[in-house]
Amino acid sequence: MSVTSPLPPLIDQHCHGVVRTQLGIGSFEPYLTEAHAPAAPGTTYFDTQTGFAVRRWCPPLLGLEPHCPPAHYLARRRELGPYEATRRLLAGTGIGTFLVDTGLPGDLTAPDELAGIAGGAAHEIVRLESVAEQVADASATAAAFVSDLAEAVHAAAETAIAFKSVAAYRHGLALAPQPPSPAYVRLAAEDWLAARAPGGRVTDPVLLRHLLWNAVATGLPLQLHTGFGDPDLRLDRADPTLLTDFVRATADSGAAIVLLHGYPYHRQAAYLAHVFPHVYADVGLALTHTGSRAAAVLAETLELAPFGKLMFSTDAYGLPELFVTGARLFTDALERLFTAWVDEGAWSRPDADRVAALLVDGNARRVYRLP
Amino acid sequence: MSVTSPLPPLIDQHCHGVVRTQLGIGSFEPYLTEAHAPAAPGTTYFDTQTGFAVRRWCPPLLGLEPHCPPAHYLARRRELGPYEATRRLLAGTGIGTFLVDTGLPGDLTAPDELAGIAGGAAHEIVRLESVAEQVADASATAAAFVSDLAEAVHAAAETAIAFKSVAAYRHGLALAPQPPSPAYVRLAAEDWLAARAPGGRVTDPVLLRHLLWNAVATGLPLQLHTGFGDPDLRLDRADPTLLTDFVRATADSGAAIVLLHGYPYHRQAAYLAHVFPHVYADVGLALTHTGSRAAAVLAETLELAPFGKLMFSTDAYGLPELFVTGARLFTDALERLFTAWVDEGAWSRPDADRVAALLVDGNARRVYRLP
Amino acid sequence: MSVTSPLPPLIDQHCHGVVRTQLGIGSFEPYLTEAHAPAAPGTTYFDTQTGFAVRRWCPPLLGLEPHCPPAHYLARRRELGPYEATRRLLAGTGIGTFLVDTGLPGDLTAPDELAGIAGGAAHEIVRLESVAEQVADASATAAAFVSDLAEAVHAAAETAIAFKSVAAYRHGLALAPQPPSPAYVRLAAEDWLAARAPGGRVTDPVLLRHLLWNAVATGLPLQLHTGFGDPDLRLDRADPTLLTDFVRATADSGAAIVLLHGYPYHRQAAYLAHVFPHVYADVGLALTHTGSRAAAVLAETLELAPFGKLMFSTDAYGLPELFVTGARLFTDALERLFTAWVDEGAWSRPDADRVAALLVDGNARRVYRLP
Repeated sequence: MSVTSPLPPLIDQHCHGVVRTQLGIGSFEPYLTEAHAPAAPGTTYFDTQTGFAVRRWCPPLLGLEPHCPPAHYLARRRELGPYEATRRLLAGTGIGTFLVDTGLPGDLTAPDELAGIAGGAAHEIVRLESVAEQVADASATAAAFVSDLAEAVHAAAETAIAFKSVAAYRHGLALAPQPPSPAYVRLAAEDWLAARAPGGRVTDPVLLRHLLWNAVATGLPLQLHTGFGDPDLRLDRADPTLLTDFVRATADSGAAIVLLHGYPYHRQAAYLAHVFPHVYADVGLALTHTGSRAAAVLAETLELAPFGKLMFSTDAYGLPELFVTGARLFTDALERLFTAWVDEGAWSRPDADRVAALLVDGNARRVYRLP
Repeated sequence: MSVTSPLPPLIDQHCHGVVRTQLGIGSFEPYLTEAHAPAAPGTTYFDTQTGFAVRRWCPPLLGLEPHCPPAHYLARRRELGPYEATRRLLAGTGIGTFLVDTGLPGDLTAPDELAGIAGGAAHEIVRLESVAEQVADASATAAAFVSDLAEAVHAAAETAIAFKSVAAYRHGLALAPQPPSPAYVRLAAEDWLAARAPGGRVTDPVLLRHLLWNAVATGLPLQLHTGFGDPDLRLDRADPTLLTDFVRATADSGAAIVLLHGYPYHRQAAYLAHVFPHVYADVGLALTHTGSRAAAVLAETLELAPFGKLMFSTDAYGLPELFVTGARLFTDALERLFTAWVDEGAWSRPDADRVAALLVDGNARRVYRLP
Repeated sequence: MSVTSPLPPLIDQHCHGVVRTQLGIGSFEPYLTEAHAPAAPGTTYFDTQTGFAVRRWCPPLLGLEPHCPPAHYLARRRELGPYEATRRLLAGTGIGTFLVDTGLPGDLTAPDELAGIAGGAAHEIVRLESVAEQVADASATAAAFVSDLAEAVHAAAETAIAFKSVAAYRHGLALAPQPPSPAYVRLAAEDWLAARAPGGRVTDPVLLRHLLWNAVATGLPLQLHTGFGDPDLRLDRADPTLLTDFVRATADSGAAIVLLHGYPYHRQAAYLAHVFPHVYADVGLALTHTGSRAAAVLAETLELAPFGKLMFSTDAYGLPELFVTGARLFTDALERLFTAWVDEGAWSRPDADRVAALLVDGNARRVYRLP
């Protein structure tokens, strides 16, 4: 019995490109973790919820048994070649639309390329900090930086579907809520540019706030990383409740604020989506990394999050496998939760079907004004 | 099979009055959320766990099918009229005693009126901040305010069953733990009264602490809002662990400290109830707002909370429907959890029945010295 | 059906000794709680998850029915005498190796004595703060204290299997991450010794940091209390994310950092074990105190914790019963979770068996270099 099928094609509201090159076990494994370092001696990143989820869902798409050993899987993957493996994996996700954050470094597929392989559509999400860093690389003075940055954000808004901020990684989310004054921005830019080597990251809280407010001014949805991620981040400084005052300050801006991931503060993110009409949430990264527990994590998010406020995403990066796990874990969790709630009488079946369609398609379609 | 029936009539240890007027869909919907603003475009507050819980439990009490459309339900409700609808709904809750916080504004039923409609008993919980604001409205000087306030709290203690504080909304719970000195209270009162328009809220942390200690001095139980609520509150400042030093300072006062709601910090509230004998907890607001997840939230609270320390409440406000959902979600969750624990051998059936009676009746009877 | 049997003998990676004396109901009950005070009037610490877990698992080991009344259980226990009751209880745990923190006061069994009764092996974990306090009792000057402390830690490392810190209780985990300078340590020692009565506790953050870095320098694993515990501790200051900068600073030290307990921040502890190769975790204390919810708590920890990073412990103290509940709750939870995951296809059975063996034996064997 399925309460949630047939689902419409999924809209992945936050993801990244995949690598184009052949991967061996040593180059594949690091994509299974948020850690930056090799696994501890005697351990492997295949022995994680992500590793087990990949081994559950992906081998059958390449003609192997679920849970086959990693070495068998990677041998088959090499046999097919990266393009064909990617094609088969993406075809098995059910995703029709990809909103792609292009701000990560590395030789990754561009949005159109990814969509082309998958037979779907793609739109670009522009990462604010990357824009600032590119502009800084080309700016001779702080004054030029400030005006070029405004222009670059404005230009990006012409084609982007949304903006994204990784202020959580660069400073933490405890930022002053108001837009900084122009004079203050200029001073912060002077300091940054004076100290900066080419390619240097923007970490100054004044500049990070300035970027957020530049994005808000465009009226496009603004995605913010919250909750866990790689070890650049200090987890407690990525608690989305730290954004409360910023959320209040942007209530009448017309821009939607989209809180990504949130875990283990996903209930806090859901609370903000509950009390502020312009706040939305996803649990992107969290499902792939919690694997057999994905339904539990999604259920916690569906406690306070209004059903018109939560969206699907994979946060997949590098491996096409992570689109598979993100999508399957989400739809499998939906089906298990909603079937249970319908069976016990808590929800009606038509409501469950309707909410499932909102979560995988309708909400994102509305927030991002997709056709 | 039921391990928890027959339950005694429930004691709702924290609730509010209901509105007396006829409600349409537009005036009904806002009571389903903690948000203050209209739902985001394209969404409705009926599409929440609260909305679904109301549609599950309430229509049958008015002669309709569960999960009927909101418009049908409200038409039937109007047909019956607010008094009769309220009577039928309250009769379906199983609540015999209502402890009513009267500090909310609006044309709400008084405690005796509510109890009269329900065929039960009621007792008043006096909200400290409301007392302070009423006294301030009538005080010409800070000195008069301070002495009139002391008298008002003392007088309230003659008839009230407990005090309630919403310091979490007004300042947050990170208050200095000790009673402020009289001189400090006087200065804070002078500042507040000088700046205050009639009806202005008390937000000064010195005055909020003074109120808490005035209440503690009466020996009555002191209820404190903790955890989520409407957007006046900043969630991270309502974490009950912020009260730890205040809890320590009141350990020998003879007054019970009752932590309300707590979510998503309900495990933290349960911890305080675990290690401090005079601390109690409920999950009032949390169950109605988490709906089909109520059993999961209650289970988390029952991890560390000693079984003699947790109490039932609905935190219902405005709608008689919220008494229904609060009561049904609680008793349904109890039955599901306790049946599972008995079935797997973790608990004995007599223990489960005994603990269920403590949670819905015995603990509140002891804490509030009810007959 | 069992996916996790037969398990190897368990390695309890963190526990304490048991009392040698006969216990009555009044002297038994306090060991069931983290509270320091008698239970609130009208309540008992037997009415807790710990109390119910003891009554579930222990009576059958002494020839009684599960869930028999506490008074029957204690009568039988007295009949057998403490030695024989302890022998029967420990024999029922499945634990083969005990890593014993000897830093708690009271007339408790020493590691070898405990292992002798259980028919297993034992190793000592040395508590840093106890070492500092013993050295302080014997030191005439701050200079002597500093050099004697260095020697004492070095000497302890010759025989200890690990060090343990209770900085969470003494100051909280928000400690500056770097080792304090020798001059700073000397000044802090002078202040402490000047103010200290014999037996006085070390609470100075400089000295606590100095202890941590002394331990790290030995290369032995360093266990840190995190999360809930008795009311000496302020819960929010025991959040393991507060250790993030210390964890970063020790990344290349060669010493493993083991985060104990963690609850209700066990997901945060698991995150640190996920992103930092040298970080490990357990949920020792949490399972005994959450009883029928142990599987849920363990499941939350297994979301982000790599399967090579989580270890089993009981944190048992005083009562041999707490070794029984700690062990049975852990293995019962493993079996229930892993059976469910295998049944739904998320994990393979060989993987589940392999991970179960890692959690109860293999990981601790590797981290503590056990034979």
